Amino acid sequence: MPGPTDGAATWRPRGRAGERAALDNALVRDVEAAIATGDMAAIAALVEGLHEADRADLLEQVSPDQRAFLVEQWREGFDAEILPYLDEQVRDEVVRLLPRETLIRAVGELETDDAVYVIEGLAPDERQELLDALPAPERAVLQEGLTFEEESAGRLMRREVVTAPAYWSVGHVIDYLRAAADDLPEEFYDVFVVDPQRRPVGTVSLAKLIRTHRPAIVRDIMDAEPHLVRLDMDQEEVAYLFSQYGLTSAAVVDGAGRLVGVITHDDVTEVIEEEAEEDILHLGGVGDTDFRDPVVRTARKRFVWLFCNLGTALAASFVIGLFHHAIAEIVALAALMPIVAAIGGNAGTQAMTVAVRALATRDLTPANATATLRKELGVALINGGLCALLMGVITWGRFHDWQLAGVMAAAMVANLLMAGLAGALTPIMLTRLGIDPAPASGVFVTAVTDIVGFFAFLGLATLLLL
Amino acid sequence: MPGPTDGAATWRPRGRAGERAALDNALVRDVEAAIATGDMAAIAALVEGLHEADRADLLEQVSPDQRAFLVEQWREGFDAEILPYLDEQVRDEVVRLLPRETLIRAVGELETDDAVYVIEGLAPDERQELLDALPAPERAVLQEGLTFEEESAGRLMRREVVTAPAYWSVGHVIDYLRAAADDLPEEFYDVFVVDPQRRPVGTVSLAKLIRTHRPAIVRDIMDAEPHLVRLDMDQEEVAYLFSQYGLTSAAVVDGAGRLVGVITHDDVTEVIEEEAEEDILHLGGVGDTDFRDPVVRTARKRFVWLFCNLGTALAASFVIGLFHHAIAEIVALAALMPIVAAIGGNAGTQAMTVAVRALATRDLTPANATATLRKELGVALINGGLCALLMGVITWGRFHDWQLAGVMAAAMVANLLMAGLAGALTPIMLTRLGIDPAPASGVFVTAVTDIVGFFAFLGLATLLLL
Repeated sequence: MPGPTDGAATWRPRGRAGERAALDNALVRDVEAAIATGDMAAIAALVEGLHEADRADLLEQVSPDQRAFLVEQWREGFDAEILPYLDEQVRDEVVRLLPRETLIRAVGELETDDAVYVIEGLAPDERQELLDALPAPERAVLQEGLTFEEESAGRLMRREVVTAPAYWSVGHVIDYLRAAADDLPEEFYDVFVVDPQRRPVGTVSLAKLIRTHRPAIVRDIMDAEPHLVRLDMDQEEVAYLFSQYGLTSAAVVDGAGRLVGVITHDDVTEVIEEEAEEDILHLGGVGDTDFRDPVVRTARKRFVWLFCNLGTALAASFVIGLFHHAIAEIVALAALMPIVAAIGGNAGTQAMTVAVRALATRDLTPANATATLRKELGVALINGGLCALLMGVITWGRFHDWQLAGVMAAAMVANLLMAGLAGALTPIMLTRLGIDPAPASGVFVTAVTDIVGFFAFLGLATLLLL
Repeated sequence: MPGPTDGAATWRPRGRAGERAALDNALVRDVEAAIATGDMAAIAALVEGLHEADRADLLEQVSPDQRAFLVEQWREGFDAEILPYLDEQVRDEVVRLLPRETLIRAVGELETDDAVYVIEGLAPDERQELLDALPAPERAVLQEGLTFEEESAGRLMRREVVTAPAYWSVGHVIDYLRAAADDLPEEFYDVFVVDPQRRPVGTVSLAKLIRTHRPAIVRDIMDAEPHLVRLDMDQEEVAYLFSQYGLTSAAVVDGAGRLVGVITHDDVTEVIEEEAEEDILHLGGVGDTDFRDPVVRTARKRFVWLFCNLGTALAASFVIGLFHHAIAEIVALAALMPIVAAIGGNAGTQAMTVAVRALATRDLTPANATATLRKELGVALINGGLCALLMGVITWGRFHDWQLAGVMAAAMVANLLMAGLAGALTPIMLTRLGIDPAPASGVFVTAVTDIVGFFAFLGLATLLLL
């Protein structure tokens, strides 16, 4: 009979010396079992030593009821550091479950970027109520944080920055850091050198600082061309800077060029994952938050894409309708035509996927757009030829009609050429028009390959076979 | 008339004080113009002050001929730091263009991880020739580096590690770092605390080290549970550790637990981008290196996917062939059937994309697989119902046949249910079988939605309408 002892028995100590405990499926199941039996001691033992990121994952992986149970148990002592690691929907759910005082304490404990992240999901009145309960200076910083646009550098940055003037010696900087130790951020990687107007004039990495002798002057050892990030810079642009130049942290400046915050590599890792994730999901016709969305919201968002594709499919169906006499005469056409459309659609998706990604990673630029199109046409000719040959032979083998086989082969080549062209051109054109190509390209490309596929095949058949 | 002066005239000084020069399309065009006129001074002025990453991008964006010209010009003084930033294919091309002595010097200047990265693309005999020309200790390190599996932690790591014993004081560590300054890596973020067998027992971040007073003992300030990476750990696993725990650097240990190297956040950023990139491209049916591959190689790799889909399309075509009597009797079926298959395909792609990504980000686990499937069925019922309603009405409007409309609607619901099920289940099953779901799922899902789509629609039509 399952009972508290059972829960405890399945628990094995995690984290051998020098190695951390980590979340795995067995642990999630153990916690679920412990929740089922209400064995609080077992739960506490299981999650003890888990990193906040892993506790966040645990909360995400259990069911909503189990999640509510865990948050209820942890309510007073809820670890604020878990919140920034949660997915948006789960975070909003957890935040709503927390008692008001716990939430106020939690927001107070977090660094500014994380705190903004947590409160931005609240309803306006809840958010105001929470802000009112915070000390004035902290409230001001958070209120300002909320005014920055979502997905901008302002939202990503942390306000706590370590600075020094250029005329200080290395010894002076180190003494200052030791004296200010309690006020410094837990982790930082660069000291930003600022002028009297607090404009960044250089950076000194901690590695540089720590290996330089005390009398050296900051001005002489600093990197005098810092990579600066504007407050309103898009997070995608920030991610590009970090990954292009391998930055660990970068100074954020306001319109007057004054230092207002710092963005660190871990914030950017999240952005990079998020942006790539967005592209994948958009290419597949689903929204960013699909996995965690409840059924009805998921269905609603996905339906928009299905609806667009329904339009495309109807247009293709209309094209087929134009040729109903041909199909009535030669029924084999009906069995063959979807092959032309399908392979065209696949080839179009290939060209489109490459173009969408190359645009996102800035590999595809106006400088090499023509070369890219030429390449796609070359690939389309080769693969169109191969598919034409294959399908020509197969069609002949199935229907013993060399004219039908010829029509099939010709339609294949025509459609693969259109697929390559549309696949590469659509994302390029959409990008020029300022439209994100990831979600929008698919519908256009499928429309082209379906319509051209059916039209070329049935049209040629009508011309040559009837 | 374009001439050297023209090239110089289009050059405008980049990099205002405190801001770096960066690569943009205008700069690429200016360089191309200068190459066309052979104006070496203009080229030198244009690329001066460009970061190595940007010079690498420049080399990638110009045509192969222009690339050869630039490398030829830079040959003796070629900046080794450009090499690690180049895409694999371009790098191999550039490496082949460099004189042997330049290449030997370049490999000697790079950090171990970058040097391995550069020489792994060489043909075995060229690689050996190059290794033989290097000093023995360096050669040994590179040779060992090449023995680690590709995409493993061993390949990612740098051998240059900063260590200290636990009993040293902070002051001792700092004095040691200052004395060893010239032998230290340019950038590092953590000091790894090791025991006499060189096993990591903790880490001290530089931020911690620099704000702590000199007499403090390392043991008392170190983080005693370091995140350790095994030499043979897959790079995807390494990336997960870094992004899950926001690591800046991590110690790499061999089978005996001894510290052998360090992986830093910038290496991991590349891996994260690479892995997400791979998933996107694989889902689209193209290889990782598609964009830079020459036409024939691209066509060959893409054809494999098209070939698989041709099989699927033929199977679907065979199903249609089974019902040729029905189509001969009611030609409208031919115009309607692709709609059922297309929308099923789209819905399947949606469910599949979400499942593939949720598996990759470890959001979808055995713990919530059943809940995910239930959700997909719910979404399929809603969207299947909506599509059925829409297409039922449209079919009735077009053919004024309520039985045909009913068949359309029923087939739509059936196919969307199968699409949701196949879309979610296929990636889950493939993952359990140890197969990467990103490249393989699409073919299965399309096969199911095509075959079920045609079969359900034509089968119901045969039963009810004939």
